[in-house]
Amino acid sequence: MSKPTPLSGFPELLPAARTVEREVVATLSRTFELHGYANIETRAVEPLDRMAKGGEIDKELYVLRRLQAPDDSADDTGPDRQLGLHFDLTVPFARYVLEHAGHLEFPFRRYQIQPAWRGERPQEGRYRQFTQADIDIVGKDELPFHHDVEVMRVMVQALGSLPLPRLSFQVNNRKLIQGFYRGLGIADVTAAIRQIDKLDKLAPEAVAELLVENAGATREQAARCLELATIRVSDHTLVQRVQALGVDDELLSRGLVELSAVLEGCADAVRASDGRVTVEANLRIARGLDYYTGTVVEIFMEGYERLKSVGGGGRYDALASDGRTTYPGVGISFGLSRTLVPLISEGVLTGSRAVPSAVLVALADEESRLTSERVADSLRSRGIACEVAPSPQKYGRQIRYAERRGIPFVWFPATETGVSDQVRDIRSGDQVDADAATWTPPHADLRPTIVTTIDNPEENTQ
Amino acid sequence: MSKPTPLSGFPELLPAARTVEREVVATLSRTFELHGYANIETRAVEPLDRMAKGGEIDKELYVLRRLQAPDDSADDTGPDRQLGLHFDLTVPFARYVLEHAGHLEFPFRRYQIQPAWRGERPQEGRYRQFTQADIDIVGKDELPFHHDVEVMRVMVQALGSLPLPRLSFQVNNRKLIQGFYRGLGIADVTAAIRQIDKLDKLAPEAVAELLVENAGATREQAARCLELATIRVSDHTLVQRVQALGVDDELLSRGLVELSAVLEGCADAVRASDGRVTVEANLRIARGLDYYTGTVVEIFMEGYERLKSVGGGGRYDALASDGRTTYPGVGISFGLSRTLVPLISEGVLTGSRAVPSAVLVALADEESRLTSERVADSLRSRGIACEVAPSPQKYGRQIRYAERRGIPFVWFPATETGVSDQVRDIRSGDQVDADAATWTPPHADLRPTIVTTIDNPEENTQ
Repeated sequence: MSKPTPLSGFPELLPAARTVEREVVATLSRTFELHGYANIETRAVEPLDRMAKGGEIDKELYVLRRLQAPDDSADDTGPDRQLGLHFDLTVPFARYVLEHAGHLEFPFRRYQIQPAWRGERPQEGRYRQFTQADIDIVGKDELPFHHDVEVMRVMVQALGSLPLPRLSFQVNNRKLIQGFYRGLGIADVTAAIRQIDKLDKLAPEAVAELLVENAGATREQAARCLELATIRVSDHTLVQRVQALGVDDELLSRGLVELSAVLEGCADAVRASDGRVTVEANLRIARGLDYYTGTVVEIFMEGYERLKSVGGGGRYDALASDGRTTYPGVGISFGLSRTLVPLISEGVLTGSRAVPSAVLVALADEESRLTSERVADSLRSRGIACEVAPSPQKYGRQIRYAERRGIPFVWFPATETGVSDQVRDIRSGDQVDADAATWTPPHADLRPTIVTTIDNPEENTQ
Repeated sequence: MSKPTPLSGFPELLPAARTVEREVVATLSRTFELHGYANIETRAVEPLDRMAKGGEIDKELYVLRRLQAPDDSADDTGPDRQLGLHFDLTVPFARYVLEHAGHLEFPFRRYQIQPAWRGERPQEGRYRQFTQADIDIVGKDELPFHHDVEVMRVMVQALGSLPLPRLSFQVNNRKLIQGFYRGLGIADVTAAIRQIDKLDKLAPEAVAELLVENAGATREQAARCLELATIRVSDHTLVQRVQALGVDDELLSRGLVELSAVLEGCADAVRASDGRVTVEANLRIARGLDYYTGTVVEIFMEGYERLKSVGGGGRYDALASDGRTTYPGVGISFGLSRTLVPLISEGVLTGSRAVPSAVLVALADEESRLTSERVADSLRSRGIACEVAPSPQKYGRQIRYAERRGIPFVWFPATETGVSDQVRDIRSGDQVDADAATWTPPHADLRPTIVTTIDNPEENTQ
């Protein structure tokens, strides 16, 4: 078989890079679990009708067909129930909640770290297979607002522990925008949101024009909408900035209280991140046509604005509904592949080594393999990953074997009685007597770690 | 949207059951890494031509089509390069090795724990989406035999640390069988292996008949083949049992030496498993028509023989080849879903709770939410997972909230100065003064664990 060529849009990591991804997943999982979020995994497929919105599927999704099936449309999963690969983790989660509601306790906190698929034309930051890390809290019939604050704070804390370029959480509130437009007397509030959402592509004047044309706004109203949309603030001055625009509306007031509470609730976690994460109100964030009803957030990565947002989410008053019961939810999705793949390919993040082994146990000759295996087993029994050299080459070559894999230590079992084993740090060349029953490598060498070219903000502030 | 119905063949776990799966994955990963196996993940899709064997695809695989693509066959991944979901982890791994060979160090040890898909008619132990845990060692041009012993021992050790019904590794060697048939003078050795492989479906007499008809064996030869196939032995008597059949062949001798070495090499790990794992030579194991060339193994689970094998593998002299370089490999695949889904659905394995939280921090009233959050953060900073009660209900109801989720402790923050916080073990009802900066739950309560109805063999032998 010929040498395979990479499939565009399906990034795959080499072992050292995979170490980076695994460490990130472990850190996120640990934080989510500390806050009581349970992990779930959903199947990779959903019936197509589940993935449609208002009867239409606007996503570039992949449809499945059994190779040996008699024809394309019929499958023994039932007539007309074609299956597709899920394009995000929200649709499968909403379906999971409905399907298993009788076995879940609400409010239900879950995190989910899994791939999703889209048949889009590949470009940087857009892949055909990509991993997302989502957290959500779902209530039954009701879900108090304080969970909006919670979910945001948990994500700030989780992402704030990662060695990434600075992340900016830009938060807004749909009630605030809708209330403002309503209070202003704009005819078509939904249309107005849709136009404001174009501010990252069009000039303010062009958007003002669209507000007049498509949302029934006067020029004066359009100007006020743009004034609101340019507010970006991360402290308590938010309320006065908005109130200074002189619009009075009950929904606006509620949205303003909620948005302020989110900013305030995240302040501790932002401080604890030592500059890795910022949270600010950005009143032009709307998250398009999705069914958000309160808090909305988009996450951007400093220096990687070209990737657009690397995460986002918000509050849905109806994440799921089966007609009788409604399940409101609030959650945030973080684009793991979208963030890590560019950072890894640019060399900003790498793994300290390609193998888990901290020690290579050298082999004097084939007859003493059992001796070397015994040493290895002794180290493993105390949690030290190691491997035995594959063949009894000259020690110099065995050391180079370790070097090529980034294994920091080589162990030399004693070859005669009365002599001690020795262990060599191949970076420094230091070689000392050692006992496999007690020796331990420095903690930093125990497991592969993430090596980053990003300045540690913590160190900068010291 | 209506209440969804489960999709047959796509098992999904509830949060407590998912705890079981996560713990099993963590235990396997830890063992694999202690032995130097690096984790990789491959994309979910492969081009169809990669999944064909000798030009044909004999698996019920799923083919992908972009929903919005103009027609079924053309995709911008290239003409005639239809993509399908991988049906195992061996094909993608072989492709990964070829594609990335220039960036890998050989021998290359990897483990991979990922789903695979087959469009088969669902039945117990056969799913349309199922997770496998594979380990393999791959060499470049050559791979010494001692790696066969290694990979088997690592899998025995990994599976031996899991709370599963007793697992039986049944090992054979293709050289041994082929050498025996050759030494016996059977005309068509491959055909003979194919007939012997039917022994689990047909009576010995019927198989003898097939050997005569399809493999050109005499009745006497057929009888000797069956004699060989009935040998099952787990100790050093293997060699004399085979030699007693009086066949002399060089390949047979080599196979016998290898098989004995595997049994001997696993003995320590079997003993350490305290009866959870047995390893025996079973000379009728052939693993069908797959391209194995030496060691072969199938794994069975006691009391679950109806699932057939729950794992298997062996040695390939050409796991992958790009025409110039050949990559021999030896590996074992363990069916995680095939094993866990029935055990979980029968209640043999369950998670100790549905949430990671070890503590529910009670809420006196909505105004003191910040106080409760502070307690929670203090516990989290020392690695104790917890959540704050969603609403200030009566304490009795908050305790029941914890009970329903299996959270063992409820924390009551002091509501007046001069009084201490208290923590209650809701199982015993014991309630004591406690300080959030120092209190720790018993180690066994820190994380959800696997609860099993299987007798711990370790306890039985005491």
